[in-house]
Amino acid sequence: MNRNTLRVIPLGGLGEIGKNMMLFEVADDIVAVDAGLMFPEEEMLGVDLVIPDVSYLVQHRDKVRGILITHGHEDHIGALPFVLSQVNVPVYCTRLTHGLISVKLKEARLKEPADLRVVNPGERFQLGTIRAEFFRVAHSIPDACGIMLETPAGRIVHTGDFKLDHTPVMGQHTDLSRLARWGNEGVTLLLADSTYAEVPGYTPSEQLVGEALDHIISGAPGRVIVATFASLISRIQQVIDAAARHGRNVMVTGRSMIDNVHMALDLGYLVDPGDVLVPIEQLRSLPANRIAVVCTGSQGEPTSALARMANRDHRQVHIQPGDTVVLSSSPIPGNEQFVNRVVDNLFKLGARVLYNRIANVHVRGHAAQEELKLVLSLVKPRFFVPIHGEYRHLHLHTQLARELGMPAENAYVLEDGDVLETDGHTARLAERISAPYVYVDGLGVGDVSRVVLRDRRHLASDGVVVVIMSIDKQTGKATARPDVISRGFVEPEESETLLERAREVVVRALDGADHLAEWSIINTKVKDALGGFLYQETHRRPMILPVTVEV
Amino acid sequence: MNRNTLRVIPLGGLGEIGKNMMLFEVADDIVAVDAGLMFPEEEMLGVDLVIPDVSYLVQHRDKVRGILITHGHEDHIGALPFVLSQVNVPVYCTRLTHGLISVKLKEARLKEPADLRVVNPGERFQLGTIRAEFFRVAHSIPDACGIMLETPAGRIVHTGDFKLDHTPVMGQHTDLSRLARWGNEGVTLLLADSTYAEVPGYTPSEQLVGEALDHIISGAPGRVIVATFASLISRIQQVIDAAARHGRNVMVTGRSMIDNVHMALDLGYLVDPGDVLVPIEQLRSLPANRIAVVCTGSQGEPTSALARMANRDHRQVHIQPGDTVVLSSSPIPGNEQFVNRVVDNLFKLGARVLYNRIANVHVRGHAAQEELKLVLSLVKPRFFVPIHGEYRHLHLHTQLARELGMPAENAYVLEDGDVLETDGHTARLAERISAPYVYVDGLGVGDVSRVVLRDRRHLASDGVVVVIMSIDKQTGKATARPDVISRGFVEPEESETLLERAREVVVRALDGADHLAEWSIINTKVKDALGGFLYQETHRRPMILPVTVEV
Repeated sequence: MNRNTLRVIPLGGLGEIGKNMMLFEVADDIVAVDAGLMFPEEEMLGVDLVIPDVSYLVQHRDKVRGILITHGHEDHIGALPFVLSQVNVPVYCTRLTHGLISVKLKEARLKEPADLRVVNPGERFQLGTIRAEFFRVAHSIPDACGIMLETPAGRIVHTGDFKLDHTPVMGQHTDLSRLARWGNEGVTLLLADSTYAEVPGYTPSEQLVGEALDHIISGAPGRVIVATFASLISRIQQVIDAAARHGRNVMVTGRSMIDNVHMALDLGYLVDPGDVLVPIEQLRSLPANRIAVVCTGSQGEPTSALARMANRDHRQVHIQPGDTVVLSSSPIPGNEQFVNRVVDNLFKLGARVLYNRIANVHVRGHAAQEELKLVLSLVKPRFFVPIHGEYRHLHLHTQLARELGMPAENAYVLEDGDVLETDGHTARLAERISAPYVYVDGLGVGDVSRVVLRDRRHLASDGVVVVIMSIDKQTGKATARPDVISRGFVEPEESETLLERAREVVVRALDGADHLAEWSIINTKVKDALGGFLYQETHRRPMILPVTVEV
Repeated sequence: MNRNTLRVIPLGGLGEIGKNMMLFEVADDIVAVDAGLMFPEEEMLGVDLVIPDVSYLVQHRDKVRGILITHGHEDHIGALPFVLSQVNVPVYCTRLTHGLISVKLKEARLKEPADLRVVNPGERFQLGTIRAEFFRVAHSIPDACGIMLETPAGRIVHTGDFKLDHTPVMGQHTDLSRLARWGNEGVTLLLADSTYAEVPGYTPSEQLVGEALDHIISGAPGRVIVATFASLISRIQQVIDAAARHGRNVMVTGRSMIDNVHMALDLGYLVDPGDVLVPIEQLRSLPANRIAVVCTGSQGEPTSALARMANRDHRQVHIQPGDTVVLSSSPIPGNEQFVNRVVDNLFKLGARVLYNRIANVHVRGHAAQEELKLVLSLVKPRFFVPIHGEYRHLHLHTQLARELGMPAENAYVLEDGDVLETDGHTARLAERISAPYVYVDGLGVGDVSRVVLRDRRHLASDGVVVVIMSIDKQTGKATARPDVISRGFVEPEESETLLERAREVVVRALDGADHLAEWSIINTKVKDALGGFLYQETHRRPMILPVTVEV
């Protein structure tokens, strides 16, 4: 590998939303940015999480100088416990992110202690031959950063997740002037967030949401219950501020919300303007129009505080007519049905419900097209790699770059495992590395394969039929009538005759079998005969498991 | 039942989207409106369709005078084959709807011929003591109608699915003047479409889509491929018209699209302005900028024409750079991932892809809030029942009615199986009837129960483990080591040691068992021991099926 060559290798986050991880490799050093998880898609049955495959890091362990974390969302930090247990290298991040990672690693109980290092935006630090600097960006969590790397192939800018917001709640702007300075000095490669590359215009400011919440809280006749992301500290601050202005106390419920509020108060990211926050136990003693509640459940997650309230299952909060419930979020794709059910149930209990489709109670955390163009214009990179998004997002983002005058051949739509090599002047795709999905299911990491998932899909769609055959060891003849049991196939009561006839089919299949035939041949024969019979009768194809017992 | 009492009984469509069916019952007569199906929700594993339970109609067979069909969409006609095979009564509908139902019933091969009767909007006909009249509405299929019923309890207006559109493509407006006249004469009850009650303002006119399509077709450098709903005849007409204006021929692909285009041409609902439509075989002989293709697959359905093109699996159409693909639709909830994958793959093949998030290539078929208010204002009903929607849609629709001055107690949010009784002056909820979901899976109608679905979900999440134990009939002792096999649980290769240890667990559980104990007790013991062991080892809970073979 040439001393001036930089290799850019996405292990996750390109071609899917989540499990973000990007590698930057030079002759002697590798630096990773982020180590996130992805929530499983619909067809990944039973899978809890998906994480990037880090075999490449394990293989090149000696070169790995550290993992830089842009911000504390799960799709950027969630894979850390798994990654660090394989490659325990220093992790660099800002202060709030450090707090969030610490909580996560404590729960994971790693064998070796992790080496977490807090860095401040603007501070420069050396990772072998690479020099790194974090820079502030506006996003839906405080202390979010992008990362600038000075490499032998020139300067690299990685935006992390970002948007522009000229009136952010906690005063954290995207550091456009730094981006402009680097742009003027020369940037080899820009990697920029593509999550909302489909959306024209600008993402509205958090200020709009603050105004809407203030309006709702001031005008509500009874209690106001606001559900939002536990990491969206600025939204929580907006509720606290509006409550303070209108003489309400704020209570917090939902485990992750309570944890995050405590941590953010301790670290100074959340400010109580004066005894506004009170324990949830005061709910009964305060009048309804003096109460605001902040809780988890804005995605309708079945075990969250809001979902419990909607199911009349929350210990303290019993929804009643006069309550106003705000879902300050927009449903993440795949969660729509959960959210809809929670909204339906809250309406049934008599609450007034405000959610993203009918009220301006949320803004996105990602930049829309005009913001993306602005960053491209300021940074003026020679090469461009859109990151964070499915293929169409990445593609549309390169289209924006082309509209701004970038030659088509300088913008690369990469997929996980692609390798882009550049010396700062030219760039080319090198040989791919392997970067498959790693499924986490219960305690198992990587032991759920395509075969297991295919079987689960088969079982899910038509259930299972087990055929038990006792066969005489000597003669190879059936010693008793075969038995057939099923689960998830047909209604047990209605299926009795069907399964009785299925036994006949098995008997006939065995009858014709060569008595000394291999079990596998007998099994196939039974499977085919029974499968054909059941399909003909029901048009279903359950998984058939023939079991032979030699007696 | 009093001679002046009307009972309104929703069997489907309230509390869910789809499987619409509403009963109107008076002393001697029952009239049903629509008989639709619903596509299964995510957790209804393996289910093909959901239909309404019509036991009430079967029970009161003698009173049922007919089923009136508002329009030819699946969620309004899809259950007809199942319903007519149980209650073969006359079906009344407009001409195009008749065409669509005929195709459907032909495929279903009913034992008795159905009695389909074409009615024209404005024509009055008697159904026992009830007099009925269809009236035109604008919707995303031609010949859509609402229904007016004159009953002993007064006039009932049922909108069906509708929107207002002052510049519709095929000239079919919602008949506002008729609604106004009935409103002036007096309407007891209005039932109105709530599908888009969450959406403020007006649904834009189809004209906008026509202009966008014209612009796309005139400016495209190569072929233009437009995917849309096969029933959205007006959209197909828009493509034909724009193609004609810009010198392109139109080819049609996708089975249901071909069928519908033929039928609509035959019935005169689609007009070819002069040899614009040509067979798909001419694709190779025409220059790219003379070609437009209309196809199925706007929902990303895996076997549709567009999905095949996206997977390079379509016989005639091979996507190439220069192609413009338009998805003239918006994804139905649940189909987003299918659509996203198709869009991603089309981009990968080099096409320019225009879809609802990035271009104005579709408008909704349902009325938004201001349209709903207009209809409420014109009809001025004494009582109001919002229909077609999940709970929040119905709730928000009644809220609109209240804003217009309707007393809260006159608007009823019903759920399937509720019974609303009115004599025209007062109304009340009577005792509910049973109206469960009926699942259709393969050939089975109603033989997939909650138990079967629960088992499928269990199988889907962690797979199945079968334990085979041979036990001596006389002694009750195990005659051989138990066997343990699994599917969908863990990777087979990795699981060998695990399953070997699982056998040990079973052996120990059997060892301690009372030799003459009941099988069921032994089974429970084995299940508990093995379940505990596997959970401890993997944090998964596969379905455990103990099988005892007596030898």
